[in-house]
Amino acid sequence: MSTRPLIVIVGVGNGSGTGGATARVFAKAGYRVALIARGADKLKKVADDVASTASGAEVATFPIESYSFKELTDVFNAIRSYSWPSGGRTEIRVALYNAGAGVRKSFLDVNEKDIQVVVDTNINGAFGFSHQIIEEFRKNDIDAKGKRGTLIFTGATASVRGNITTSIFSAGKHALRALSQSLNKEFGKENIHVAHSIIDGAILTDTQLSRQEDASEFANNPNIRLDPASIATGYLYLANQDRSAWTWELDLRPAHEKW
Amino acid sequence: MSTRPLIVIVGVGNGSGTGGATARVFAKAGYRVALIARGADKLKKVADDVASTASGAEVATFPIESYSFKELTDVFNAIRSYSWPSGGRTEIRVALYNAGAGVRKSFLDVNEKDIQVVVDTNINGAFGFSHQIIEEFRKNDIDAKGKRGTLIFTGATASVRGNITTSIFSAGKHALRALSQSLNKEFGKENIHVAHSIIDGAILTDTQLSRQEDASEFANNPNIRLDPASIATGYLYLANQDRSAWTWELDLRPAHEKW
Amino acid sequence: MSTRPLIVIVGVGNGSGTGGATARVFAKAGYRVALIARGADKLKKVADDVASTASGAEVATFPIESYSFKELTDVFNAIRSYSWPSGGRTEIRVALYNAGAGVRKSFLDVNEKDIQVVVDTNINGAFGFSHQIIEEFRKNDIDAKGKRGTLIFTGATASVRGNITTSIFSAGKHALRALSQSLNKEFGKENIHVAHSIIDGAILTDTQLSRQEDASEFANNPNIRLDPASIATGYLYLANQDRSAWTWELDLRPAHEKW
Amino acid sequence: MSTRPLIVIVGVGNGSGTGGATARVFAKAGYRVALIARGADKLKKVADDVASTASGAEVATFPIESYSFKELTDVFNAIRSYSWPSGGRTEIRVALYNAGAGVRKSFLDVNEKDIQVVVDTNINGAFGFSHQIIEEFRKNDIDAKGKRGTLIFTGATASVRGNITTSIFSAGKHALRALSQSLNKEFGKENIHVAHSIIDGAILTDTQLSRQEDASEFANNPNIRLDPASIATGYLYLANQDRSAWTWELDLRPAHEKW
Repeated sequence: MSTRPLIVIVGVGNGSGTGGATARVFAKAGYRVALIARGADKLKKVADDVASTASGAEVATFPIESYSFKELTDVFNAIRSYSWPSGGRTEIRVALYNAGAGVRKSFLDVNEKDIQVVVDTNINGAFGFSHQIIEEFRKNDIDAKGKRGTLIFTGATASVRGNITTSIFSAGKHALRALSQSLNKEFGKENIHVAHSIIDGAILTDTQLSRQEDASEFANNPNIRLDPASIATGYLYLANQDRSAWTWELDLRPAHEKW
Repeated sequence: MSTRPLIVIVGVGNGSGTGGATARVFAKAGYRVALIARGADKLKKVADDVASTASGAEVATFPIESYSFKELTDVFNAIRSYSWPSGGRTEIRVALYNAGAGVRKSFLDVNEKDIQVVVDTNINGAFGFSHQIIEEFRKNDIDAKGKRGTLIFTGATASVRGNITTSIFSAGKHALRALSQSLNKEFGKENIHVAHSIIDGAILTDTQLSRQEDASEFANNPNIRLDPASIATGYLYLANQDRSAWTWELDLRPAHEKW
Repeated sequence: MSTRPLIVIVGVGNGSGTGGATARVFAKAGYRVALIARGADKLKKVADDVASTASGAEVATFPIESYSFKELTDVFNAIRSYSWPSGGRTEIRVALYNAGAGVRKSFLDVNEKDIQVVVDTNINGAFGFSHQIIEEFRKNDIDAKGKRGTLIFTGATASVRGNITTSIFSAGKHALRALSQSLNKEFGKENIHVAHSIIDGAILTDTQLSRQEDASEFANNPNIRLDPASIATGYLYLANQDRSAWTWELDLRPAHEKW
Repeated sequence: MSTRPLIVIVGVGNGSGTGGATARVFAKAGYRVALIARGADKLKKVADDVASTASGAEVATFPIESYSFKELTDVFNAIRSYSWPSGGRTEIRVALYNAGAGVRKSFLDVNEKDIQVVVDTNINGAFGFSHQIIEEFRKNDIDAKGKRGTLIFTGATASVRGNITTSIFSAGKHALRALSQSLNKEFGKENIHVAHSIIDGAILTDTQLSRQEDASEFANNPNIRLDPASIATGYLYLANQDRSAWTWELDLRPAHEKW
C-alpha cells in the first residue's frame, strides 16, 4: 500500500474562507485532510462539504475547545491514531495555521480577554501546533521536491503594520510572522519549508460578505476582494516549491486594492 | 509651587543597563523618577544609586511581582498617590517600557513557561502599562514642545527579524513593536508621542559583561557594544523632540557591529 | 485564427539562467517568446535552444546595444512588426525584466562607468521597457484571469539590503524595486499586474558555476543554490495569478541558505 | 591655533528648508559651514543669512552647475583650498547630502530628462560627494565621540515606499537609501558614521508654503508639517552620537501625520 500525504489545517470557520478553500484544493490534489477548529458540529459540516468536492477525498475533523498550547499539542494524539477509511500509510506533508482573531478596536477598549484570545490564537496555539508539526516533518523522508514538509501561516496587513485599531491584532500577527521567520531559518537546513502569507485585503467569506454595504458588488467584483480559492492556489504553489527556490513570504491582494 | 515632570520606567534590572541609565539621565535633566520592576530590594538599591547621581533627584520605587496586565495597571494607584519629598505637582511626561525577557533557545526547547514569561513581558504588561500611561498623558496639557507626553519602548534586533534561536523572543519583540506603532498612529493626533528603539547589538550591562570571554575588551572597547548612557541620551532626545518632527523608530548599534 | 500570448524577456545571458529558463517554461506553456539582450549571436543561440525545448515554440530575438531608455523603447517597433512564423494575432501578456549588472566592489573603487552600467540596467532601460509594456498591456482586453498583463522584475538580496560591496549594485536594485512597487500601485486599478522577485541566493548559471570552488557540489546540491527552472516556475505562477489575489513581491531562496 | 570642525552641506535651496536650517544649527554649534548648491547668487544669500545667525560664523559657498559625479568631486578642490577668514586648521567632521529632485507625475509622463535629473541628484552626485567625504573623513583622527566623521543623507517617504506618482522619485530615493546603508556597513568599522533620515511629511519651506491652500494653517500649525529647525536638531543629535550607539535611520514626521 502506498503512502498518502496529509494536510493538517487549523482554523476553518464555516468553510467559506481560506481554510476551507485550502482543504478543497489539497483534497483535489490527492491529500488527505485533517481539520482542526472549534465547534464540532460546524467543523463536521465543513468536512462533509470538502469531502464532496473531490472523489475519494478523505477528511477528518479534530475539534478543540480553545487555541491553547496544550490543546494544539494533544490534538495530535488523535490525528496520529486516526484510521483513515482507505487505510494505508499517511504522512503529514503540509500544514496550514489559519486560525485568526480579528479584534479591531481602539486601544483603550482592548481588555484582558481580547489580549488572551489574540495571544492564544497567534502565540500559544501557534507554538504548540508548530512544535508538533516540526516533530512530524522530521520523521518524513525528503520527497521528490527535496522537502520533508511545508508549514504555512496565514498573515494579514497587520502582520507588517500596526494601525489605529489594531494594537492587539497587529501585536498577535507580528508575533506569528516572527515565529514563521524563525522556523524558516532554523529548520530550512533540515529541508522543512516554513512560509507566511500576507493577505492584504478583504477575503470573500460569508462573514465579510455579511458586513458589506454592497454585498452583491463584493461578491461579484474580484477586483476588490480576495477569492479564498485563489489564496489556496497560492498555498498549493508554496507546498509544491522545491528545495532550491522556496518562499518565506507571499503577499496577496486584489487588483484594485489601495495600498 | 511649580509642576515637576515625572518619568516612569519599567524594567531596570540591577541598574547597570538601559533602564538605570535612563533614570540617571532624566534625573539629571530635572525629572522625578518612578521605577517599576520585580525584586523590591534590588530595585531600592537602583533607586539609591540613581538618586545619588543628581542633586535634588527624587526617585521612587514601585515593585511588582510579575508583568501581568493587572499588576502593571494597579501599580499606577501607588504612583498616583505617592508623596514626593519636595512636594508640589507632578505630571507623568515620559515613560519607558524597558522590560525584557531574553529567552534564546532552539524552538523545540521552548516550553509553555518560556512563552508565558515572554507574553507577560512584551504583551500583557506592556498593554496594561501603556493603557495607564496614555490615560495619564491625556490629562496633561500640551507643553512647550507641543506634546502631552512621550512613551518609549525598548526593542532589539529581534523586533524586526526572527532567527534560529529567537522564535519566542522575536515573537514577543515583534508584538511590542506593533503595539508601539499602533499607539503612535492612534494617539499622535492627541499629541502623544510613542517611539520604539531597535537596540542592535550587545549592551554593556553587568549581565552581558559576565558572559563575555574577553570581559576587559567588552568593557573598554565602545566600538563593539552599546553604552547604556548613550542609549539614554537617545531617549532624552526623543523626549525632547517637538511635535513637528518626531520619531517612531530609532535604531542604535555600535560602530563595528556587523549587520 | 486565435490570438497567441507573447512573453517579452529582457536579459538572458547565455540562456543558462533565469531569463532562459523563463523562456523555456513559457514556451512550453504556449507562449510566443521575444528575447531582448545584448550580443546578437549569443542571443540567437539562446533562442534556438529555447525553440528546441517545446514543439511549436516560436522564439524571436531582438538584440540591443545597451540598456538605454531609447533602445528599450525603440526595440518595440521591431517586436510589434515582427511576423511570427505561424501567423495569427499576438498579444504581449507577460513581460520579464531580468537584466542585471552584478557590480560588487568596495565603494571607493566604484567609478563613473560602474554607475552608468548599473543605472542603465536598473533605471534607464527599466523605465523605457516598462513604459512600452504598460502601453501594450493597456491595449489588451481583460483575460480569463481578470488581467491585461503581468510584468515581472527580477530582484536580489541587494534589492532590500545595502551591504559592504554593494553600494552601487544595491542602489540600482533598490531603484528597480521602487519602480515595480510604484507601477503595481498605479496600474493595478487597470488590471495590470506588476511583481518583483527577491532572489536571495546564488543561481545555478554557467557563470556562477565557473566561480565555485566546488563546482560539482554547487551543480548537484539543490539545497544551496537556486535552480533557474524553479524560479521560472514561480514566474509562471505569478503570471497565472488571478486579479483577486495577486502578489507584488516573491522571495525565493535555497533551503539551506543562511539569511 | 586649534582645529575647527567643518560641515559640508549639499542642497540648500533658498535657505528656508532642511539644508539652511542645518547650516544655522551647526554654525551655532561652532562649525564652519561649506554650502554646495546650484545658483551662485541664491547660494550667496543663503550663506549671508546663515552667517548672520551666529556670531563668529564662517560660511563659504561652492556653487555647482549640476549634480554630476564629476562636479561633486571637483568641488572639493575648492573646499580644500578655501582660506577661512579666521584661519587655523579645518577638518570636515560632518556632511549632509540634502539635494532633492521632487519629480511627481504619472509613470507614463516620466521622460528621459526627469530620469536624468533624479539619477544625477540621487546617484551620480551622491556617489561623487560620498567618495570625497569618505576620503576626507579617513584623514581625521578619531574624536572624543569615537568618530572620524558623520555623513547624513536626507530621505523621504519615497525612500521606503513606491507609490502612484513616485516611480522615478522613489527609485532615486530608494537608491540613495541603499547607498547610505552600504556606506554605514562598509565604513562603520573605520569609525565613520553614515545615517539616513526619512522625512515623512511636508516640510515648512517657502516652496511648500506657496503650494498650500491654507498657507496660514500650514505655517502656524506645527502638528501638520515639519519644522526645518527640528530636522536640523535631529541631525545635530546624529552628529553627536558616540561610536557605541549610533543610528543608521531616523524617521521624522509631524504629530498629526496620517501614516
